[in-house]
Amino acid sequence: MPPPPPAPVAMSATLAADEALARRRLAGERVLSMASGEIGLPVPPALRERLAAAADENAYGPVPGSPALREAAAGYWARRGIGVDPGRVVAGPGSKSLLFALLLAIGGDVVVPVPSWVSYAAQARLAGADPLPVRTPPGEGGVPDPELLREAVLTARAAGRDPRAVVVTVPDNPTGTIASPGTVRRLAAVARELDLVVVSDEIYGDLVYDTGAPAESPALHAPERTVVTTGLTKNLALGGWRTGVARLPDGEPGRELHARLVSVASQIWSSPPAPVQTVAAYAFGEPPEVTERIAASRRLHEAVVRAVAGHFTAAGARLAPVRATCYLYPDFVPLREQLSRVHGVRGGDDVARFLSERHGVGVLPASAFGEPAEALRIRVATSRLYGDTDEQRLAALAAPDPLALPWIRDSVAWVGEAVASLATTTAP
Amino acid sequence: MPPPPPAPVAMSATLAADEALARRRLAGERVLSMASGEIGLPVPPALRERLAAAADENAYGPVPGSPALREAAAGYWARRGIGVDPGRVVAGPGSKSLLFALLLAIGGDVVVPVPSWVSYAAQARLAGADPLPVRTPPGEGGVPDPELLREAVLTARAAGRDPRAVVVTVPDNPTGTIASPGTVRRLAAVARELDLVVVSDEIYGDLVYDTGAPAESPALHAPERTVVTTGLTKNLALGGWRTGVARLPDGEPGRELHARLVSVASQIWSSPPAPVQTVAAYAFGEPPEVTERIAASRRLHEAVVRAVAGHFTAAGARLAPVRATCYLYPDFVPLREQLSRVHGVRGGDDVARFLSERHGVGVLPASAFGEPAEALRIRVATSRLYGDTDEQRLAALAAPDPLALPWIRDSVAWVGEAVASLATTTAP
Repeated sequence: MPPPPPAPVAMSATLAADEALARRRLAGERVLSMASGEIGLPVPPALRERLAAAADENAYGPVPGSPALREAAAGYWARRGIGVDPGRVVAGPGSKSLLFALLLAIGGDVVVPVPSWVSYAAQARLAGADPLPVRTPPGEGGVPDPELLREAVLTARAAGRDPRAVVVTVPDNPTGTIASPGTVRRLAAVARELDLVVVSDEIYGDLVYDTGAPAESPALHAPERTVVTTGLTKNLALGGWRTGVARLPDGEPGRELHARLVSVASQIWSSPPAPVQTVAAYAFGEPPEVTERIAASRRLHEAVVRAVAGHFTAAGARLAPVRATCYLYPDFVPLREQLSRVHGVRGGDDVARFLSERHGVGVLPASAFGEPAEALRIRVATSRLYGDTDEQRLAALAAPDPLALPWIRDSVAWVGEAVASLATTTAP
Repeated sequence: MPPPPPAPVAMSATLAADEALARRRLAGERVLSMASGEIGLPVPPALRERLAAAADENAYGPVPGSPALREAAAGYWARRGIGVDPGRVVAGPGSKSLLFALLLAIGGDVVVPVPSWVSYAAQARLAGADPLPVRTPPGEGGVPDPELLREAVLTARAAGRDPRAVVVTVPDNPTGTIASPGTVRRLAAVARELDLVVVSDEIYGDLVYDTGAPAESPALHAPERTVVTTGLTKNLALGGWRTGVARLPDGEPGRELHARLVSVASQIWSSPPAPVQTVAAYAFGEPPEVTERIAASRRLHEAVVRAVAGHFTAAGARLAPVRATCYLYPDFVPLREQLSRVHGVRGGDDVARFLSERHGVGVLPASAFGEPAEALRIRVATSRLYGDTDEQRLAALAAPDPLALPWIRDSVAWVGEAVASLATTTAP
């Protein structure tokens, strides 16, 4: 075989960390999985039954997904103020696949926020594009600072590069924060000024703790150029079922992008799994048992995230208030000197290694999210702390105080001890 | 939004044709779908039940697929003389997605046979590669003529291009033929000489009519460089379930390619749908009800393909003996003069248009498979003729003489009339 070309991308950091932790657990080690954002909750019974009932569906169906799924997704968005013609909805085998196909369909280079989800930059490289990193404003993850975005795009264009899109995450992974409405509006204005497509990953949209203050979609402010993606992976824990949806813009440019996306989809995946589409159509209709389950998981995430966050702030880490998701992104910069002196810890990778090797707590360093190695930040996910069995996980969903459940209390205490040990001012 | 760049790829010709025919049918028109190779047969009951039982599986699981699925796929290949370490098996959401990810993982340009499946060349372009077309030997579809392959690769390299892989289809779509063992051996030798990866799409492997003479995999002759892909889309009609598997080579280069493929998969699809993986693990184990269903569908394809082929040869078209799949690829070149004179038909596109517009028979022109527009060839798929209901389709599978069933008899007669009308020597 030919000498292998340089690896185009590394393994997804979240999935790699997950598999490494699974191997350690299999080897008998006691480990706490806080590296990946996979939601450790069972399939809601109504959806399980509907998948079973759809087990005779084996036709591909239309490339962009079944009419029922597209209509249900359009209704889901309409209830959030961003209604869309179902003909502009494209379903795919996970929003990860849709995001990648969008980059192929849009072409050119793409701006990604720093920090941001592990796969945007890797997908850009696989699509033959250069990811242009732009920092988010302090305390507001997921949306590149609009002024820095303008500067970066103009500089890149002057250098002959071709940025055509900006990816945003609203609410944000990895920080659990939400870009302010003002930032989203300015982002939309700059995107219009620079003629950029906004790809808005809203997979955490249903996991905003304060349901009275939902995250604002750029689609509200730049409807003619914003593509929204979401799925059932986070709100309903159906990651392993692989179905996501994209909402393409109205108007002629949106029509063209839709046609290009469907063409790409037809060549690289054909259609999302048919039985899952049928369940997804039901779920996006938001019947009571679905909204109740989402509400319960949102409350559970919030309770556990806040308890874990308390340990980090008590240890002296800096942490923007977490307002959504099951993530926190503590910054140990106030402890820089002592971390270096006591443990030889000088960056996020060192923090993650310390927590993993000394305490069996798996987290991801900031470098996995596009930050420099010296950034003393890590991403911590609470979504695997809810139990090891369906019984425990259902109890966690139902509990008025999930922190009173022994398995959750113990896990949270475990993180607490690990963080306290990291923050100690005297050599161990 | 920025001015759209030139469309990187067109919509998959099979899927586009299918949707166009579905629209015509919906509008009340009487149409016969012979354009796409989607297998119109129901889910085997044992697999339907297993999917229902797996409806509580919602975890991603390992990127390359569950251990059970990888072991079952390795066993499937071992029974065909190409055993493999399950650690070298990668499952994906359909072999279409796996083929694309392989092109991304291998990098460089790729040789594709002419004619060949509609998506290879499109996928190469999406992966940023140039597809290098090389003709297959007369009467043997799916494998580029080894001598022409050598010439094309050396010429391309001399011109600064970087061909690193050759895709083959064994047995072949679109022609329903099988490359001879001698051709496969020479292909393997040339691939070794030129240091090319062979990507062998063997999705039709179980649909060889003479089970005593299976198609020979290049993995037998160039094991160190051959990747084999397959799935359950064709043998078990599970296209809509989206699961395929790839068998990576042994040895160090195979290990590297495996790691690269898993990295790409982790960034663009995460893992195949979990409940489907569980069923696929069962199916690749080939229990009796699965092998019986595959045998029944193979007999059905053969009976109907032969009957349809008879109409084409009776009309004067040239046709290599169909030995596998549900396809035939008749060549109207012996009728060139009369087709032009009587109907103004001057290429495969004209033939397809004539059959569709005059007779409601949907087929694909040779141009969809990379052939020039003047090639008077079309691909005809019989896989949708088996019935409109599950009852009819099960009866077709069970029938000792499927051609005696009225709905199949009528459809075959319909094609026969359409072909006879095309071949008429006098103006209509």
